[in-house]
Amino acid sequence: MSLLFKHLRVHQIFGANTDVGKTILTTALVRASTALRNEVFYLKPISTGSPQDADDEHIKQFASPKVHTECLYRFHVPVSPHLAAQMAAGDESQKIVSDKTFVDSVISYVNRSASATRGPAHMYVETAGGVHSPALSGTTQVDCYRPLFLPTILIGDSRLGGISATISAYESLLLRGYMVDSVLLFRDEYYRNSEYLTPYFAERGIDVAAFAHPPPVSPDPRENLAITDEYYKSLDMGSVQRVLTERHQQRIDQLDSMPRRSMDAFWWPFVQHGLVKNEKDVTVIDSASNDFFSIYSQSSQDSLLSPQLDSSASWWTQTLGHSHPSLTLAAARAAGRYGHVMFPQATHEPALKLAERLLHHGPGRNWASRVFFSDDGSTGMEVALKMALRAYSVRMGLQGIDRKNLGVLGLKGSYHGDTIGAMDACAEEGVYTCEWHNAKGFWFDPPTISIQTGVPVISLPSVLAKAAAPSDTCAPSDSIAWVYDMPARLETRLAQSYRTYISQTLDSLEQSGGPRLAALVLEPLVMGAGGMLFVDPLFQRVLIDVVRSRDSAPESKTDWRGLPVIFDEVFVGLYRLGAESTIPILGVNPDISVHAKILTGGLVPLAVTMASDSIFQAFVSQDKATALLHGHSYTAHAVGCEVANETLKLIEKESQSAAWNEAKDKWGNSAAWSLWDPEFIRALSSLDKVSEVMTLGTVLAVKMKDAKGGYVSHSAQTLLQDLKNSKVGAKNTYPPFSVHYRTLGNVAYFMTSLNTSPETIRALEEKIWTALQSDSADEERRNRHI
Amino acid sequence: MSLLFKHLRVHQIFGANTDVGKTILTTALVRASTALRNEVFYLKPISTGSPQDADDEHIKQFASPKVHTECLYRFHVPVSPHLAAQMAAGDESQKIVSDKTFVDSVISYVNRSASATRGPAHMYVETAGGVHSPALSGTTQVDCYRPLFLPTILIGDSRLGGISATISAYESLLLRGYMVDSVLLFRDEYYRNSEYLTPYFAERGIDVAAFAHPPPVSPDPRENLAITDEYYKSLDMGSVQRVLTERHQQRIDQLDSMPRRSMDAFWWPFVQHGLVKNEKDVTVIDSASNDFFSIYSQSSQDSLLSPQLDSSASWWTQTLGHSHPSLTLAAARAAGRYGHVMFPQATHEPALKLAERLLHHGPGRNWASRVFFSDDGSTGMEVALKMALRAYSVRMGLQGIDRKNLGVLGLKGSYHGDTIGAMDACAEEGVYTCEWHNAKGFWFDPPTISIQTGVPVISLPSVLAKAAAPSDTCAPSDSIAWVYDMPARLETRLAQSYRTYISQTLDSLEQSGGPRLAALVLEPLVMGAGGMLFVDPLFQRVLIDVVRSRDSAPESKTDWRGLPVIFDEVFVGLYRLGAESTIPILGVNPDISVHAKILTGGLVPLAVTMASDSIFQAFVSQDKATALLHGHSYTAHAVGCEVANETLKLIEKESQSAAWNEAKDKWGNSAAWSLWDPEFIRALSSLDKVSEVMTLGTVLAVKMKDAKGGYVSHSAQTLLQDLKNSKVGAKNTYPPFSVHYRTLGNVAYFMTSLNTSPETIRALEEKIWTALQSDSADEERRNRHI
Repeated sequence: MSLLFKHLRVHQIFGANTDVGKTILTTALVRASTALRNEVFYLKPISTGSPQDADDEHIKQFASPKVHTECLYRFHVPVSPHLAAQMAAGDESQKIVSDKTFVDSVISYVNRSASATRGPAHMYVETAGGVHSPALSGTTQVDCYRPLFLPTILIGDSRLGGISATISAYESLLLRGYMVDSVLLFRDEYYRNSEYLTPYFAERGIDVAAFAHPPPVSPDPRENLAITDEYYKSLDMGSVQRVLTERHQQRIDQLDSMPRRSMDAFWWPFVQHGLVKNEKDVTVIDSASNDFFSIYSQSSQDSLLSPQLDSSASWWTQTLGHSHPSLTLAAARAAGRYGHVMFPQATHEPALKLAERLLHHGPGRNWASRVFFSDDGSTGMEVALKMALRAYSVRMGLQGIDRKNLGVLGLKGSYHGDTIGAMDACAEEGVYTCEWHNAKGFWFDPPTISIQTGVPVISLPSVLAKAAAPSDTCAPSDSIAWVYDMPARLETRLAQSYRTYISQTLDSLEQSGGPRLAALVLEPLVMGAGGMLFVDPLFQRVLIDVVRSRDSAPESKTDWRGLPVIFDEVFVGLYRLGAESTIPILGVNPDISVHAKILTGGLVPLAVTMASDSIFQAFVSQDKATALLHGHSYTAHAVGCEVANETLKLIEKESQSAAWNEAKDKWGNSAAWSLWDPEFIRALSSLDKVSEVMTLGTVLAVKMKDAKGGYVSHSAQTLLQDLKNSKVGAKNTYPPFSVHYRTLGNVAYFMTSLNTSPETIRALEEKIWTALQSDSADEERRNRHI
Repeated sequence: MSLLFKHLRVHQIFGANTDVGKTILTTALVRASTALRNEVFYLKPISTGSPQDADDEHIKQFASPKVHTECLYRFHVPVSPHLAAQMAAGDESQKIVSDKTFVDSVISYVNRSASATRGPAHMYVETAGGVHSPALSGTTQVDCYRPLFLPTILIGDSRLGGISATISAYESLLLRGYMVDSVLLFRDEYYRNSEYLTPYFAERGIDVAAFAHPPPVSPDPRENLAITDEYYKSLDMGSVQRVLTERHQQRIDQLDSMPRRSMDAFWWPFVQHGLVKNEKDVTVIDSASNDFFSIYSQSSQDSLLSPQLDSSASWWTQTLGHSHPSLTLAAARAAGRYGHVMFPQATHEPALKLAERLLHHGPGRNWASRVFFSDDGSTGMEVALKMALRAYSVRMGLQGIDRKNLGVLGLKGSYHGDTIGAMDACAEEGVYTCEWHNAKGFWFDPPTISIQTGVPVISLPSVLAKAAAPSDTCAPSDSIAWVYDMPARLETRLAQSYRTYISQTLDSLEQSGGPRLAALVLEPLVMGAGGMLFVDPLFQRVLIDVVRSRDSAPESKTDWRGLPVIFDEVFVGLYRLGAESTIPILGVNPDISVHAKILTGGLVPLAVTMASDSIFQAFVSQDKATALLHGHSYTAHAVGCEVANETLKLIEKESQSAAWNEAKDKWGNSAAWSLWDPEFIRALSSLDKVSEVMTLGTVLAVKMKDAKGGYVSHSAQTLLQDLKNSKVGAKNTYPPFSVHYRTLGNVAYFMTSLNTSPETIRALEEKIWTALQSDSADEERRNRHI
């Protein structure tokens, strides 16, 4: 929702404190803009105190009358805006304007002004008090205005203590990512703050300009007018204006050049560069806030920046929205206290707090005894595999070459990351492979679950389909809860047929002479990268049960039975699917589990591999050689751990929110619920172009009808490309937004943060619905696109 | 250098601004501490203005005369301390007290006081002005006092604008990691700041207490005394005192419990848990600053916290010292602007700036065309291998199974990370292996270089040693520059014998039927994890030359010849060895290179893999399937990129520093230079217990005489364990510090940051020297240790 125009230069004025000369220096800026023959807009979004003393009145009086001035919210009591708003609202606190409404009204004013002028024009948006003075709702201004992401001018404090006030205010702006284009303050010969601040900010790339204090107020109003006018005439804002215009132009030039330069310098992940032909194929992200990117568009007639909904949750990482101030502060706190510190045989508070939380009050409760830290889901899975294979080798007494010929048991369509070890735990299917990829193991073709024309249906692989009756695979009602009701389903005929099939397959594998299976590796409930496949949880549960029942080792104290079981919860865990962990839904504990992505709230990489004590004990001896010889330089880095702690704390709060309770209600309060509307899901699954739909928690997967299918299919991309148009399905959304989404062949998926507002989700549903109605998504365009 | 005592509770008082009532509320705290029968210390480190109005005088007057008050630096002019110090120094600016001297004087006072009391005692250290008011040297207080890491009390601002001032001051404290135990301010019925701030800080776990304003000053001094005393009597600081004491106790309890809890919850990397027997085997890191950890020691009689030099640079990551404020601010800036945003086919400023800097003004200049981002050295190497193997396969026209049977050429002792693919590029030697490790390729036994009794010597593997004369392997002088002079050495007889040996070996490998070699993978100059082996650079250079001369492919437009050459510069690059890159020393460009560790200044994980255009082109087509299908969730995360940009900027400055120039001078200004003193190196290499020594840049490796050797040897640990004693070799260091170091079997290594002060390095040299002199490092202790 941030704004940038070619013809209209907009700056937001923040003060290092109240009473530092914000209005005076802004008036001088306005006069200088006018003198340069620009059309000038002055906005005071909130004004408190007597109207005749108001800042916009001062501007009208001392700058040109041609200046457009506006105040959006005016209160006559001279107190902080949040108190004024409270007083005005009285008992009806719902009357207090929300942050969203407030910011939208500023956006609307800026947009109207931009349309009303042909430029060149300047706009100044003057805030109230200091950077952290509360706005109407009580949210402080730096946070409240943040979605606008306007470049700022900081008015410094020239008084005793003003060095500190100015630097702290700057740091509060910086913590929200604001660009500070200039620092202005009064020149004080005694305290000489500007002398100190000029080199201080120069080192940070920011110009400081100092100006004479205004003259004392004369008791004679007429004389006052004259000396004030004289004072303003004496201020030379020329070089400040040059800096501001230069910064504005540089920013546009920078954004403009970024697509080409990026196409020249980057090697993007999972991108075929041969298909990136035009600069407009590159998404330029200028900033991000809540669920939205602010993206640059060269061709836009209006603002060069426009909001785009991050509907892939930035590769499934976003949790509480982008640039969440609490996560920024958590990162800063840990960086300031520790930086990164050595971890082997050492400890620090953020890591210990995180480990204990995960073990005792998180997905490791009741089964895990240890936390191993690494950097991402892929490395976390490599650690998990090393743990499982070693635990198996030790218990089975394997030595030498026997340890090398081990494989894993899993499901087709699984994905555990892009490092070779993680790849080797997956079947080699389709194009996702590479030179050293050497799939080691056996993978079952799993039954999957989806909603087709409103009804949950289990699709069985052909080997199982023959013997199944429709009643085995079709839900008795339209409720997906049925699918996830393990206790009931374990008694069904389908469960029995799964059991038989799995047992027989394992029997024949043992005869086959293939690699010895040494671990069971699963993405519980949903295989994400494999195509957002919602696996029948009953099949996974029965698979685990069967494997554990086939323990052939001599009786021992060890806890794991059959094979060590690894849950890859990197994508599915920590409420991505609505539940903290998939463990309660499947009703069995793993021996090892891996978490990443949401773990750090979508800010920085960090992964954990948790293990039960029986796995851990396989590595414990008096011999250094048997230790788990794995570690990354930044293992358990304090910034990641502290951000994870803050994330888990905030998620706990979110999981009790009204929005979640309402969504759960709509889905009948079962463990299988979704933030997406059940009516929308049903309708979507009945559309002609749609083959099937499925949802859990924040995730919505839509499979298109497409004969080709597979990873290289473009059908989902083609059918949904209207989502790139912000006007599609934008009935009730302000400001209109486009949608970033990702596809996996003929499957499009959409994913929200855990705290995405119901309004945003409804708007996205409306847009998806409209896009899929569109007649233009036809064969002709498909051909053009491919 | 931070301080914590059981019997002495110390708090530092910061103000949200000047004139917010810091001294008044501190006086009230002092009185309350006295009333609770504690011995009370009050320290005003710096006081400016008239002595009779000084804060310590106020304390003396209104608290008990038994309170110990002290002021360390007093100036009579009522201006900011930095101006007062400048005025007092006049033209002799060197008279201005340095930050180190200033902080040491505070440490010394606190330690003296702690020794002088048996407690229970409280101490208050009152700062001047606001949090960012400059101290004596001009460094602002939050940064200047940071090494002390005292728990803080923030005095909030109760005036108009005070909400903002208080929150911003808090955020500046938080950016330095300070613990804020309490916020105190005056209660103001009109502005009601405390009403706003109480829930605001409660959400952040901080208690706010508000107190009545002091009465107006009476013109009658006697009356003034009476009403002021009355006022102080009316303030109830009981609950604040309880909070402060509780926090103090909680902190000690927390530190005390951390070793046990960590032993129960963590699975440490590269640690044999069976050997971690006692709580004191666990290093509890309470905070870190510059080159020092602040570690907790239960048994200490003095401060429970003591400084420990991070002499492994926290696994080779530290660059500019821990908790560098510029890196914290860079992380905060990016987190506040973007959080993390989706990267495939997208772009953002921090990533683009970093890529362009590395390509055009960094180690990629002249050869690299693309930057691929991943999370750590290991994943960066997996990407490099995928690139090289594919480029080879494509150019050689390999298909199907032929692509799977590829190997790499490298050196024995190499290490590229702990994910399986990176491990597979290394020989399987010794204990560093795991179940799925399947080494693919051939590894030469490399000649190495070390200093033995003062003279650089090349140790040849036996196959080469037979034919070599002493003049081939012994430096003509004691200068290591000789070793790294490639142009001269390429003409020598040794170079010729390397050439012949390598060619013949490659010939016979081609006949052998082993895996087809598809990439040359090297850690240039030093193989770190393999035992800090300084490889003869001539051998690496000749190896590259020979490989490139054997290009058997049909002539093509491609640039790479023979095999794609990968430089793993994760450890050796970005000035760790004194040079930005090893490329100019070896005198040849790689086709692919990997950087991590120093890249992000030792704060958060990030890695880059750079590639030449000819490598990149192997993946470019119109078919999505041939793209490099590799990517991590947090690819090119903005925080990491912004921290990397800041790091590279600061390194550039550091590389011009006086300290570096002096060190280079000592080493004869060759490309091979070290921050370690050449005289020390020579002397060390002549010690009885030492077999050989080598150094480059920040790195010092010391190989002990030990028959056993290898990864599981403890000899280096045993011989150097006196370094854990802060008193050893501590002649001139204040405060004394212990040393954290790591060993690789019989090799101990020490590593500084790029900006570690010469004083600290000299002190460490003194300590190493003393430890190795010690007679107590005897067989008896070795036995006990193992």
